[in-house]
Amino acid sequence: MTPAYTQLHHTFTRLSRFDHLSAIAGWDSAAMMSPQSSQARSEAMAELDLLRHQILTDARVGEWFKDVGHENLNELERANLHEMHRTWHNTVVLPDWLVEARTLAGARCEHAWRTQRPANDWNGFADNLREVVKLARQEAQIRAEAAGTSRYDAMLDLYEPGLRAADLDRIFGDLKTWLPGLLQQVVAKQAQSTPVPLQGPFATERQRALGLQVMQLLGFNFEQGRVDVSTHPFCGGVPQDVRITTRYKDDDFLPALLGIIHETGHARYEQNRPGEWLSQPMGRARSMGVHESQSLLFEMQLARSPAFLRVLHPWVIEQFGQQPALQLDNFIALNQRVKPGHIRVDADEVSYPLHVILRYEIERALIEGEIEVDDIPTLWADKMQQYLGIDTRGDYRNGCMQDIHWTDGSFGYFPTYTLGAMYAAQLFQAARNAVPGLDDAIAAGNLQSLSGWLKENVWQHGSRFSTADLITRATGETLNPAFFRKHLEARYL
Amino acid sequence: MTPAYTQLHHTFTRLSRFDHLSAIAGWDSAAMMSPQSSQARSEAMAELDLLRHQILTDARVGEWFKDVGHENLNELERANLHEMHRTWHNTVVLPDWLVEARTLAGARCEHAWRTQRPANDWNGFADNLREVVKLARQEAQIRAEAAGTSRYDAMLDLYEPGLRAADLDRIFGDLKTWLPGLLQQVVAKQAQSTPVPLQGPFATERQRALGLQVMQLLGFNFEQGRVDVSTHPFCGGVPQDVRITTRYKDDDFLPALLGIIHETGHARYEQNRPGEWLSQPMGRARSMGVHESQSLLFEMQLARSPAFLRVLHPWVIEQFGQQPALQLDNFIALNQRVKPGHIRVDADEVSYPLHVILRYEIERALIEGEIEVDDIPTLWADKMQQYLGIDTRGDYRNGCMQDIHWTDGSFGYFPTYTLGAMYAAQLFQAARNAVPGLDDAIAAGNLQSLSGWLKENVWQHGSRFSTADLITRATGETLNPAFFRKHLEARYL
Ligand SMILES: [Zn+2]
Ligand SMILES: [Zn+2]
Repeated sequence: MTPAYTQLHHTFTRLSRFDHLSAIAGWDSAAMMSPQSSQARSEAMAELDLLRHQILTDARVGEWFKDVGHENLNELERANLHEMHRTWHNTVVLPDWLVEARTLAGARCEHAWRTQRPANDWNGFADNLREVVKLARQEAQIRAEAAGTSRYDAMLDLYEPGLRAADLDRIFGDLKTWLPGLLQQVVAKQAQSTPVPLQGPFATERQRALGLQVMQLLGFNFEQGRVDVSTHPFCGGVPQDVRITTRYKDDDFLPALLGIIHETGHARYEQNRPGEWLSQPMGRARSMGVHESQSLLFEMQLARSPAFLRVLHPWVIEQFGQQPALQLDNFIALNQRVKPGHIRVDADEVSYPLHVILRYEIERALIEGEIEVDDIPTLWADKMQQYLGIDTRGDYRNGCMQDIHWTDGSFGYFPTYTLGAMYAAQLFQAARNAVPGLDDAIAAGNLQSLSGWLKENVWQHGSRFSTADLITRATGETLNPAFFRKHLEARYL
Repeated sequence: MTPAYTQLHHTFTRLSRFDHLSAIAGWDSAAMMSPQSSQARSEAMAELDLLRHQILTDARVGEWFKDVGHENLNELERANLHEMHRTWHNTVVLPDWLVEARTLAGARCEHAWRTQRPANDWNGFADNLREVVKLARQEAQIRAEAAGTSRYDAMLDLYEPGLRAADLDRIFGDLKTWLPGLLQQVVAKQAQSTPVPLQGPFATERQRALGLQVMQLLGFNFEQGRVDVSTHPFCGGVPQDVRITTRYKDDDFLPALLGIIHETGHARYEQNRPGEWLSQPMGRARSMGVHESQSLLFEMQLARSPAFLRVLHPWVIEQFGQQPALQLDNFIALNQRVKPGHIRVDADEVSYPLHVILRYEIERALIEGEIEVDDIPTLWADKMQQYLGIDTRGDYRNGCMQDIHWTDGSFGYFPTYTLGAMYAAQLFQAARNAVPGLDDAIAAGNLQSLSGWLKENVWQHGSRFSTADLITRATGETLNPAFFRKHLEARYL
């Protein structure tokens, strides 16, 4: 009889092949697809999703998970089995009707949001969101009962396995004691001199050339990936062929450039996942938080540092010529500008965690049933005032309706952005401690030792270790917000 | 109980969704994929092929085909059922071991061919080809027994359903009586004045702009497709999003331009298949021959005509400036150059059918067991001498090893190229008869009435009618090589 582990290995290999097709079709939908194809594409993707669901929920898979307990596995196989089981459990625990209802409610909510947001129509939006929240609570309840955790913990576990709301309360609680004050200090300091703004236009072709040059510097493997354009930039594709995207603005080249650097961080993680395990769950990136730590390490820790900006500066001048905004000091100031605002995705690295803490506190309470959808606007306005010092009353469009993470029921996802920022600070400091002369190498435009350290300590491990173990092995301790605080103070005060 | 037709309809809808993903991934492999991904892509595609095979060979599908006989179907449903059954039968009739063995032997033969061809290594190639032919004969034998036809007829039916070798013998027999003589006459005539050759370089960006302009003129719907670059140009994707490709040469813009026109002919057929039937076999293009008739109608009948070349001419000058080769008469002469050569894919429309007849005669005899692989070189050299007046002895590289249609076992495919050329001539003449002022409209750069006629008479029908019925309904008679002859004589004598 074929061992159960072999059967599971085969099943997940098969799934990874369908994932490959799904990833490429998903990239194509965003970067290449003609509008007339969207209906047919959705149907094809849904058929593939259904197939993957059927493969995982086949009764034999459950049997194999029972039988595999008696088999002798080495450490890597055990780690793989753990990840297989997590994937399987997270899928089979939900009844089919709930998966369908959730998809439908999310699609309806998002579709209506497209016109409700410009119309600032909170009441209309709330009607749909209530249904989404109702189903998300049912999902969370089912997951929580199976895991023996709270509802929100069960959702959080989907995106950052092992992390609990209690951890977040401690970590974000720490941030809340000093970050709003630090933000006000930085704003006051930067008020003394406003940088000269960029004068466009900046030709797309030159922006693209600059982006490619920077990707090369950052070690993106062009034999194993490409960069294209999409409305919402992302990192997709498959580890053997990573597809990042960006979006070019005529009047400012920095969003595309920093966006490319961000996605290149994600891409290098993907390109360097463990080669022998790519067909298996253990070969996957560890978590959303760890993934974001790699993009933010590249974008925030590295690319917005004066040392790196000095490396970029002559390339920028070469593409766009000199202008007052591109005097070196001004160029650095533009990249380190801190300005609290309404919109999370436009936020600087000092404000960003405060947006996330606000979302976390509201979504946790929503899922735990402590508040209702109708309570969101008041809570939102209060917290924006308290954390960011901004009056957002009545402006739903740029308030709680600004993005779609809640409309599709992805509660538990927001915290990973700030976990990523904090892991990034901690990892970057660990790399500096471990690699002699790292800062000098970066200042000289040599990123190989940084890449080498990241590959050794993060990328090559896939999901072999838990996030806590991965971070501890790499940095000597579990997540410690002090590194993030030190980074912000050093850069901005 | 759900009617069997409904079950079949659902099954083929599901298959079409997987076909959608396969088509997009196939396009991606040729136009976008990074080299490191090719192994993972092949595995993913093979997994999808296996799945499609499993869906079709599921025993219930056979039951439904039995039960559906008792159900009341309208004419379109009956046509659809016919195409469903054809697809199903062509799949299930082959045992799995043969499908696998054929794929392996084809892959091995093609892989070795890549180095054997440059080395002119016929003996090495023949070793692998013998295995391919052996398996192809087994395939043909199984198909022939099921269909009650000859072996070669059974293979031909895969590409041009309903056509028999007896038809080809008649049609190609006709061509052979006059085409070699006509070719010699045209060559003698054109020897009197050689056109001035083009002087490059021709910038890729300008070639691309010209291509897009011509696609627009030809009615390519850019809301429903796109054009990219690949080593071997093709028309792929899905009807809602047709992906054509081309390849740019620095020193000559005509191959890319005419290639784009050719693929646009395929693309318009795809873009105009019947909208309500796209998920079903009846919605597919009729056959390989009819498909090629649309590309050749655009490329040969239309684009190489003086009237159309006069429309293109100012656009060419606008992109590349004037030069002696681009004097109008010379530009027309360049596009109507007839020059018998070794290589089929480089052949002009007068020589091309002779390459095809040669392949047909050899592959039919091979599959029927009348000759062996070792007989190919002598037959090749004899026929090249007889049909095209070229001595090819000993030059296997540019002889029987020049392309890969045989290495993957696609015996029966070659004739469709020339069937397409003949259908094209017949259809174009029928359009001229049916549409008053068609030639004037074309000369004025207005292609809407031609498109309208093609849509009405070919594109919108999908596979509703047999090829013979389709051609008869459109032109008043079945395939008649006289139209092709008249076309060649009018253009070249
Ligand atoms: Zn990111
Ligand atoms: Zn073609």
